[in-house]
Amino acid sequence: MVPPELDEGLPLEKIKDFSIEELLGMAIKAEIGAREFYTSLAERIDIQTLKEKIEWLAREEEKHETLLREIYTNMFPGQEVVFPEEHIGPELQPVVRELYKVEDIIDLIRWAMKAEEIAANFYAELENIVETEDKKRLMRYLSDIEKGHYYTLKAEYELLLDWAMYSQMMNVGP
Amino acid sequence: MVPPELDEGLPLEKIKDFSIEELLGMAIKAEIGAREFYTSLAERIDIQTLKEKIEWLAREEEKHETLLREIYTNMFPGQEVVFPEEHIGPELQPVVRELYKVEDIIDLIRWAMKAEEIAANFYAELENIVETEDKKRLMRYLSDIEKGHYYTLKAEYELLLDWAMYSQMMNVGP
Repeated sequence: MVPPELDEGLPLEKIKDFSIEELLGMAIKAEIGAREFYTSLAERIDIQTLKEKIEWLAREEEKHETLLREIYTNMFPGQEVVFPEEHIGPELQPVVRELYKVEDIIDLIRWAMKAEEIAANFYAELENIVETEDKKRLMRYLSDIEKGHYYTLKAEYELLLDWAMYSQMMNVGP
Repeated sequence: MVPPELDEGLPLEKIKDFSIEELLGMAIKAEIGAREFYTSLAERIDIQTLKEKIEWLAREEEKHETLLREIYTNMFPGQEVVFPEEHIGPELQPVVRELYKVEDIIDLIRWAMKAEEIAANFYAELENIVETEDKKRLMRYLSDIEKGHYYTLKAEYELLLDWAMYSQMMNVGP
């Protein structure tokens, strides 16, 4: 089941239907969405070590937003960022419900993994679309960073599946 | 050229020549080596944003050492950790020389990527060797985390190759 925090969005092949302005706008929107998702998720998690990892992800996405805005300004000086309604891949929304069970967290982390994976592929596709070597390099940078996030989340996800072990390892009190 | 901070070690296929005690000992030794490498590297880097990333990696490796020691104690209660002389894959040594040029940093980061990649494969192999589901899960966890490190380093590496862009992006002063 797709949870309320996730809107599935367009498949990656649709990327060619959009202009570079629109794609950068989508990327910025996705980074904002991811930051808000991680921030709200961290607020609802009281497992300290996991909370810190999620807060770290929120700070990372904020840096990406800044970076993408700089690229946008550099490519389209004086132009306001265009935010298309559409978005490629799953878009994360803030978590507004209470998370009662570890399964609720596991479910959201699995979707966040999916979003990070698609973001990594999205930037890899953008690398082919942007023209200069410096912009290609930045897209490669963002793609690699998102892949890093994916594996960071995957590691936690794998362990959370065995809650007894996770709580013991992370010294989560009873 | 292999820099002085790196000793190439044995190929991954040699893993079957060692006992699980020895392999865990090697893993602990590798985590200590990686932590010392990252700590010493961070001390010699004055690019604030990169320094912080490297310090973060050092803290991560320290957590892994603790985790692996717990697994060892759990598997071999009351037994001192055996550290074999051999090690699988590249072993990182502390950086004791001055780093004058960005190329020196790039070179070390490339080797650290190599070490992280082999560590990820090493833990994936260990997953097949340890017997219970909980230990397999922990090996998968460590493998994923090291993959995350690999991509974090790869992202920085890619950008550092264009120093003009890196220094502008990261607001490194002249």
